[in-house]
Amino acid sequence: MKYTHGGNAFLYGGEILDFSANINPLGTPEPVREAAARAAARADTYPDYMCTELREAIAAREGVPAGYIICGNGAAELIYSAMYAIRPTRCVIHNPTFSEYGAAARAARGTTEKEVEFICNPNNPTGLLMPKDDIKSRANENDRVMFIDECFMDFVTGYEKYSCVDLIEDYKNLIVLKSFTKMYAIPGLRLGYLMTSNTDLLEKIHAVRQPWSVSTVAQAAGIAAARDLHTPEFMREYIASARKTLETEFDRLGIEYIKSAANFIMFKSEPGLKEALLKYGILIRDCSDFTGAGIGDYRIAVRTGGENRRLIKALEAVLWQNR
Amino acid sequence: MKYTHGGNAFLYGGEILDFSANINPLGTPEPVREAAARAAARADTYPDYMCTELREAIAAREGVPAGYIICGNGAAELIYSAMYAIRPTRCVIHNPTFSEYGAAARAARGTTEKEVEFICNPNNPTGLLMPKDDIKSRANENDRVMFIDECFMDFVTGYEKYSCVDLIEDYKNLIVLKSFTKMYAIPGLRLGYLMTSNTDLLEKIHAVRQPWSVSTVAQAAGIAAARDLHTPEFMREYIASARKTLETEFDRLGIEYIKSAANFIMFKSEPGLKEALLKYGILIRDCSDFTGAGIGDYRIAVRTGGENRRLIKALEAVLWQNR
Repeated sequence: MKYTHGGNAFLYGGEILDFSANINPLGTPEPVREAAARAAARADTYPDYMCTELREAIAAREGVPAGYIICGNGAAELIYSAMYAIRPTRCVIHNPTFSEYGAAARAARGTTEKEVEFICNPNNPTGLLMPKDDIKSRANENDRVMFIDECFMDFVTGYEKYSCVDLIEDYKNLIVLKSFTKMYAIPGLRLGYLMTSNTDLLEKIHAVRQPWSVSTVAQAAGIAAARDLHTPEFMREYIASARKTLETEFDRLGIEYIKSAANFIMFKSEPGLKEALLKYGILIRDCSDFTGAGIGDYRIAVRTGGENRRLIKALEAVLWQNR
Repeated sequence: MKYTHGGNAFLYGGEILDFSANINPLGTPEPVREAAARAAARADTYPDYMCTELREAIAAREGVPAGYIICGNGAAELIYSAMYAIRPTRCVIHNPTFSEYGAAARAARGTTEKEVEFICNPNNPTGLLMPKDDIKSRANENDRVMFIDECFMDFVTGYEKYSCVDLIEDYKNLIVLKSFTKMYAIPGLRLGYLMTSNTDLLEKIHAVRQPWSVSTVAQAAGIAAARDLHTPEFMREYIASARKTLETEFDRLGIEYIKSAANFIMFKSEPGLKEALLKYGILIRDCSDFTGAGIGDYRIAVRTGGENRRLIKALEAVLWQNR
């Protein structure tokens, strides 16, 4: 089993400071955590296979009809389900990007004439944004499904100008994927959702997977998360400010990085940096396994001020030693 | 979205007595419930995508190497994943049986020459067992994957004589599916596992799905469940005794039923029985949507003595009224 992701801090024991997973560094908001724990203690009934209450809460938050929403066992499950439903023969993927798009497309081994374009916006691992007009014109010009992954969009300052959620009513070939995983720090619960106004596609996605994908725990946490608008508002400012400080420090250290709109930064350094930082109890994401990136490419999450300072100090020590 | 299962008691409000889902009526054992609640409160890290500790606990329980085990988001996910991995052109399904076998096989729209035979043992909804020698000879005679669903096997008195787990080492074409859902009453958490010694198949199943299928909550609950051997031992006697009492009452009421080895009973009655029992606050499974069953076929779970008596009283009242 090939694994090409961050977020496997468990391999390094509990004491590691994890910059490899792009998760809200302030942790799970208390109401979300409480809702999850309460639901876990009454797990003796099957989950609502329609996710009715959760979809209604998401509908209110996103301003789309609940009927356009499908919830999944993490956003990753929905990438696979969409590929099994569409069965595209050809996919456009803008590398480097999240590797599960290609993995899911390969797994579905398409037999239809359909084409899919994946746009991760902002993109993981670069943090770059694609302007909405570009997405619109690509959606107009091409007869293909546009799969817009906005799993990090809620971290973006001025996200309203970039998010394509308001386009789905008019663009039947658009799928927007989102997740509560990153903003509400619940990667362990598995919850994502996709939105499209294409009813044929919605039906097909339901048909290619089990009815009980989303656990009662994820549904309960998701309802609490969907109703919490304060956390993303607060975090957008928090991340922008912490990212700015990191950029200043990177400039000072002469580290070449990509200016990111998200809660992570991709940068270039020397081979072996990940291993060197592990000695300082810090885990970063080695990006050399991303198609379109290479040896010496890394990604870090933007974390709290104190944690970011620890990273900078360790970086400084490692890079200084090697000079 | 077509839904053809029991376990949707949530549609009827909290006060309904649910005989439609085949779940341990004594509820989630305390150590399992506690492990789940603890894990739900620390869901800010990604799940171990390899399920290492959980697979080791299952390996010790089942007496198979951990490398033969894949865990999933409920047993149902693994039915779909196996079908996407195998892509059979032809499936042998012994109806009436669990409808997700056919749904998954259709979803995978096979293109290979491979064939799969599904055997639900004991079978849902009939509760009938297929002798191990029959499975062996079918596995020997046919060049097909044998998919043995043993999700209810732990409820069977003398299960050792029927379970095919000890065959997987010698029969590379065997998959055995199991679940903690029913015995440990955790349908809301989503956790199942399959076992096979076929390494090619194991690799293919990993390749057709996301890496993080099993939540941290399900993994924690599963570890506690796997180590608890007392619950199945106790429940086998409990269910056998409660089922015997139900059979005696069914005989007295002149209800025609199938002698079940599992924690549920399929029986024949009049059309409209489900609706009539709902007026008594009782939900049963109308089996008329099972391929191979028809109008007037029903299934009930075996529950506690007092609950079963409530069912019998309601049945008596409904059937007496209609005479």
